[in-house]
Amino acid sequence: MTTVAQNTPGKQSNARAVAPTTDTELESFLAAAQAAASPLAALRPAERAKLLDAVADALDSAADQLVPVAQRETRLAEGRLRGELKRTTFQLRLFGELLRDGGYLDARIDHADADWPMGAPRPDLRRVLAPLGPVVVFAASNFPFAFSAAGGDTASALAAGSPVLLKAHSGHPQLSLLTAEVVTSALAAEGAPEGTFALITGTAAGAAALRDPRIKAGAFTGSIPGGRALFDIASSRPEPIPFFGELGSNNPVFVTEAAADDRSMEIAEGFIGSFTLGAGQFCTKPGTLFVPAGSRLVDALRNAALPPAAPLLNDRIQSGYAEVLQELQANHRVTVLAQGSDPLADPPSPTLLLTTAADMLAEPHALQAECFGPTAVVVAYDDESQLPQIAETFEGQLTATIHGTDSCNVAGLIEILARKAGRVLWNQWSTGVSVTYAQQHGGPYPATTAAGSTSVGTAAIERFLRPIAYQGFPQHLLPESLREENPLGVPRLVDGRREG
Amino acid sequence: MTTVAQNTPGKQSNARAVAPTTDTELESFLAAAQAAASPLAALRPAERAKLLDAVADALDSAADQLVPVAQRETRLAEGRLRGELKRTTFQLRLFGELLRDGGYLDARIDHADADWPMGAPRPDLRRVLAPLGPVVVFAASNFPFAFSAAGGDTASALAAGSPVLLKAHSGHPQLSLLTAEVVTSALAAEGAPEGTFALITGTAAGAAALRDPRIKAGAFTGSIPGGRALFDIASSRPEPIPFFGELGSNNPVFVTEAAADDRSMEIAEGFIGSFTLGAGQFCTKPGTLFVPAGSRLVDALRNAALPPAAPLLNDRIQSGYAEVLQELQANHRVTVLAQGSDPLADPPSPTLLLTTAADMLAEPHALQAECFGPTAVVVAYDDESQLPQIAETFEGQLTATIHGTDSCNVAGLIEILARKAGRVLWNQWSTGVSVTYAQQHGGPYPATTAAGSTSVGTAAIERFLRPIAYQGFPQHLLPESLREENPLGVPRLVDGRREG
Repeated sequence: MTTVAQNTPGKQSNARAVAPTTDTELESFLAAAQAAASPLAALRPAERAKLLDAVADALDSAADQLVPVAQRETRLAEGRLRGELKRTTFQLRLFGELLRDGGYLDARIDHADADWPMGAPRPDLRRVLAPLGPVVVFAASNFPFAFSAAGGDTASALAAGSPVLLKAHSGHPQLSLLTAEVVTSALAAEGAPEGTFALITGTAAGAAALRDPRIKAGAFTGSIPGGRALFDIASSRPEPIPFFGELGSNNPVFVTEAAADDRSMEIAEGFIGSFTLGAGQFCTKPGTLFVPAGSRLVDALRNAALPPAAPLLNDRIQSGYAEVLQELQANHRVTVLAQGSDPLADPPSPTLLLTTAADMLAEPHALQAECFGPTAVVVAYDDESQLPQIAETFEGQLTATIHGTDSCNVAGLIEILARKAGRVLWNQWSTGVSVTYAQQHGGPYPATTAAGSTSVGTAAIERFLRPIAYQGFPQHLLPESLREENPLGVPRLVDGRREG
Repeated sequence: MTTVAQNTPGKQSNARAVAPTTDTELESFLAAAQAAASPLAALRPAERAKLLDAVADALDSAADQLVPVAQRETRLAEGRLRGELKRTTFQLRLFGELLRDGGYLDARIDHADADWPMGAPRPDLRRVLAPLGPVVVFAASNFPFAFSAAGGDTASALAAGSPVLLKAHSGHPQLSLLTAEVVTSALAAEGAPEGTFALITGTAAGAAALRDPRIKAGAFTGSIPGGRALFDIASSRPEPIPFFGELGSNNPVFVTEAAADDRSMEIAEGFIGSFTLGAGQFCTKPGTLFVPAGSRLVDALRNAALPPAAPLLNDRIQSGYAEVLQELQANHRVTVLAQGSDPLADPPSPTLLLTTAADMLAEPHALQAECFGPTAVVVAYDDESQLPQIAETFEGQLTATIHGTDSCNVAGLIEILARKAGRVLWNQWSTGVSVTYAQQHGGPYPATTAAGSTSVGTAAIERFLRPIAYQGFPQHLLPESLREENPLGVPRLVDGRREG
């Protein structure tokens, strides 16, 4: 791939474009990925863990080269980017830990049982998860490390043993190239099969890869229209494949009357910090805050100091943000609660809008649309008993949050929010998404196209695996994880009982 | 629903049709299913286990009413049907056992950790699987108990806590009605929420249910065209939903030279028994047998006594079978190896066709099509080294089998077959699908539309669950499975370590 001058007329972008992947290049990447699939799958989990560690080490070592490029292309601050890179390499190593443990294989052994009460003897059956094969990952714009070339989808797919074609995001092309060079060099030095990872660029190449029969799954983080278009491609193939898209979310927050009474300043500050974090460009940004009408919390929000204007990631996001904000402000159900001096400028100062519960019930779709940038809508409700009904109007969400007190009667609201969202929070803010064993970053459509999966946390590996059962096999022909003596020492379910 | 006389001209069917579900009826079933979703999900797993046990007991008690109706509608023998009913009630109880164990919840607890090495403190995060909500299950024709009204999909969905709308198969409408009455009565008597289970009839009602926003997943066992059409409906909804379709499979069997030498009579007998089991109407019927050209196994198959003609399930399957068989016989690459006296009659006597490896390589798609009924294709190969190349020509399969000896060099072939199929067998026959912990009944498309899942075995419950994480919650507002004291005693992953 060659760096080319960007010829778009008008304002110079902060990101120098790279030439799109040609058909010939794509074909060679696909062929290499397919060739890599079996040898990569054949590596012991602990061997793949070494690959992930090597990539993490190489990225850490390259921090001083990577971060300045990221700063230039994304306008994000150095501290934020260094923190994000740390998270990214931690994530790779955490998947390495998961591989060394082996529990992710979900290995199961049923010994033959002539008296199995089903009515017929049970054969010897052994089941283990195996990689799907090559996958295409579409990187996000807003996390140039953690959800991009070497981000969560890449880490979980490689951990599973699936080669990755990484469709670079056009928002940080040079960083993507540089990251990919670090990744491929580290993989090669550690002896990974050639074709384990490749970067592709350009919308057409991404769609072509997703259509290719050698690709067995897609993963994506981005907008609802973009993600849905790719989901439709994946689903309408002659051989449909799973598509793990994280699309959009409003992330509503419900403040009870008691909490608004008790902690109005704390909640106002926390909310403002959360919806303006990263200039409001988090998929987990709280877009709506439900507060008691006439409460001190409304005043606290009205009078709070909003953070200064901060640049958005790129021109396209800036213009999209201004458009959605103007549309929201033009809605007769909405007034401005608090706003900096330049809400529509580049960079934009933050905006808090105000509406009522009745208005949101009247027009939920328009008032719950995701606004990617530093704007949120405060909804004044008359009575806490309105909250369940309003909560039901939301589509699928990544997160939903309640700020309450221990004595609040919120069981019904929690039940609704748990039906709507992948993660429900109590007295915390949704923006941060910790990489852990129990994390769930997902949710019903349109938050994602695959509510049964997560894109953050160790369970993300499950997306790129499928089960295979071996029936009646002699020991020497079984995968190691299923052999009687358990040479890999993985935890297993043996005749229905957990071992190890 | 009312039983109506079937007015189709021509031969009287063995199954009296029932009136299709009306729009009004469907609406009431959907509303009831939605109303049942939360209370059903709120039951403790062990409470749902009682519901499954009650259904199993009621079905066992009704065996003498159910089996004669099944015999009349499906032309299957009483012994087979009684065995299938036993399997069906065993399956329900096995899911009950799974619920009482609680491991299926995949409960995970990460305690807050200020020193979490990601670069930011880890919040308290707790994750558990919860039901998807109401699902629609499309019953199969060929297993009127085990894959029908109270079959595997119903059992796993109810176990998960998802209400079921069961689209009856038109091949056994009276049995479906009767089974549904037994199921709904047992559920009601045990105190299940009203709307937990309902039977619907008619293609239009099934499709309408699948399109309804209250339905959150579909499951299906049947043909490739039928399953793909429903998958497309599920995927193209405004809110796409997962569709777990088991469509079709050829289930190829590869006999090595050494095995053909050693065990020609045994393999010939086993194969004939397997491909004619249930008159060849198993989705796991071995449709293709690869044998060494000129081996004793070819002679053994040519000279073997084929079983007598047996009736197919219904007229539609009979005419479809005759059509596919005629097409296969007309292919110039195919000759008849062995055949009863009335291969195209009703009932049809079994047929074994013969072709060569070179011919199958020349025209894999035509010669690998599923033929639902007592026909299989024997493929004579010149050299074992041809097998990997031929194996690569197969699409996704439910099963693939090798008959070999311990000294055969088959690692490469196993690797290919494990990529193609959900279950790989060694020196056994694929027809039987044991209900166990380690069973995998699935496979890449077109075997299924969801290669990551199984429709038989305890792991089938995972299809109807999705993860929810709770962040920062006080104990009393958490689901019981995630509370610190573990009142349900479920196994959990705590701070990355398995407990219980």
